[in-house]
Amino acid sequence: MSRITLDEAAALLKQHDRFKILTHTYPDGDTLGCAYALCYALRKLGKQANIAVDGKLPSKFGYLAESYEEQDFAHEYVVSVDVAAASLLGESVMEGVERIDLCIDHHGSNSLEADNVYVDSSAAAAAEIIYQLLEPLGVELDENIAGGIYTGISTDTGCFCYTNTTPRTHRIAAAVMPYCDWQQINYINFVIKSRAKIKIERMLLETMEFYAGGQCAIVYTTVAMCEALGAGDDEMEGLASIPRQIEGVKMGITMREKAGGVFKISVRTNDGIDAAEFCKKFGGGGHPAASGCSVEGDLGTVKRMMIDAAEEYLR
Amino acid sequence: MSRITLDEAAALLKQHDRFKILTHTYPDGDTLGCAYALCYALRKLGKQANIAVDGKLPSKFGYLAESYEEQDFAHEYVVSVDVAAASLLGESVMEGVERIDLCIDHHGSNSLEADNVYVDSSAAAAAEIIYQLLEPLGVELDENIAGGIYTGISTDTGCFCYTNTTPRTHRIAAAVMPYCDWQQINYINFVIKSRAKIKIERMLLETMEFYAGGQCAIVYTTVAMCEALGAGDDEMEGLASIPRQIEGVKMGITMREKAGGVFKISVRTNDGIDAAEFCKKFGGGGHPAASGCSVEGDLGTVKRMMIDAAEEYLR
Repeated sequence: MSRITLDEAAALLKQHDRFKILTHTYPDGDTLGCAYALCYALRKLGKQANIAVDGKLPSKFGYLAESYEEQDFAHEYVVSVDVAAASLLGESVMEGVERIDLCIDHHGSNSLEADNVYVDSSAAAAAEIIYQLLEPLGVELDENIAGGIYTGISTDTGCFCYTNTTPRTHRIAAAVMPYCDWQQINYINFVIKSRAKIKIERMLLETMEFYAGGQCAIVYTTVAMCEALGAGDDEMEGLASIPRQIEGVKMGITMREKAGGVFKISVRTNDGIDAAEFCKKFGGGGHPAASGCSVEGDLGTVKRMMIDAAEEYLR
Repeated sequence: MSRITLDEAAALLKQHDRFKILTHTYPDGDTLGCAYALCYALRKLGKQANIAVDGKLPSKFGYLAESYEEQDFAHEYVVSVDVAAASLLGESVMEGVERIDLCIDHHGSNSLEADNVYVDSSAAAAAEIIYQLLEPLGVELDENIAGGIYTGISTDTGCFCYTNTTPRTHRIAAAVMPYCDWQQINYINFVIKSRAKIKIERMLLETMEFYAGGQCAIVYTTVAMCEALGAGDDEMEGLASIPRQIEGVKMGITMREKAGGVFKISVRTNDGIDAAEFCKKFGGGGHPAASGCSVEGDLGTVKRMMIDAAEEYLR
């Protein structure tokens, strides 16, 4: 395994011909935006490339795949995009994959085993890296590639709002906007909400409790709540950002019950509180201001564990 | 009255020395960001400049005024920023003002009477124009000026999300970010919510009704609701964007009762529905996707008027 430069990553992509591009579980706008943008770019160079997504492509990101058809070939080179750790590679994604040849990522905590690793933790989104690869690859922007890049950088920065945004992020947005329907991408990712989503948000707000003198806000959804409202994965996205918004809250914890008695926990922080370190206690990780973990147990027990841990952590 | 160029506007600013800068009623991030950025820029050139705000500076924008102190002088030149019409100039703002010498604005519908008018309707925010004036004025960016410009462009574009955003908007953001605490500005304007605000949002959602086959969503707040929740002007900001977010909604109408039996109506639209034309029927106006008007009457009557007008307009 070796850490390589951006130009070396571009050279490796140029040297190979039949690609499989891996995305992470619970695929988001960045891993998908990267995968589609890179796939379209490689195909533009006359290469073959396919994308592996865990489960179904979330319907809201259907626009990314409008020009995509699975190609029939045996891959010789495997690239992962925005995948920080082996545990984030779903079983179906890893089918037929023996090793990862090239890992492209922006998580400083990246621990994925790959022959070649390019990590730029100053990139707000891995899609910034895909944009920077275009020039050394000799690929010109088009609607498909620009749409993937805009999707990745806008979703990973909360539409240029989060603190990971940099001047480079804005410059890349300025460069790709003329090529893609960014208005529609923003509408899909940041504006539109289904009536079910509005309802689940209202219900989530009703569960909100404050601890650690108001520094910690905790909310939850259960399988039963989601079933009652007809809320699926699409409706659940973005809920994690809600508790952190409240005045005085330094740590917002969103607990989401999944089938099988497991809670998916999302932690969002302000004021330099390290969410990744907090989640590490529960076998999780992520970014300093946005991390996650999974905890087994019933609602009362898991909630108590999180509250106790948060009160100790914020003391 | 004459329409002038950007360079002519800069020349007029250079030629004069004692400025009064006028902002519009219900001051928002753009009119205030422009006023403070321009004021700091003029003072940097050794000139005297004061800002006139209708009522108190909204507390959330207090950071703009941290380096501002009222100067004692008699103004000789009056500049308005982001003021689209004479009706948007409050009485206290117009005290001692006989005429407006220079109007700087980005509203295509601008109708303000001023000796010299510079309107660039391609600017997402008037603050883009203030940024462009810096070079011909020979003023370098600093924290105060950059903070005003970032505030104007980020708030008028919903943090680079609305369809008025352009590549230029992003390029200006990239240019000013290194000089100001944009993270804190975003936190104040787009992240933090008081507990009272969360409550008023929940209450607003409970008033939501759909008309015109789901194409129109209407919500309201009353004086009594706000009093019950302790919600003031700060809490009411941004509510207008809520009804337009619902899937299928082309026109979102937010009715806010003010003291004295008047409703302030905000209209937000999708899919090319012209909100300005709709509001014109009620003596209001604004942008194609974001307009407003004021209507006198009780809740039931005003709501019925708006619903009838919307159903006819969307037919």
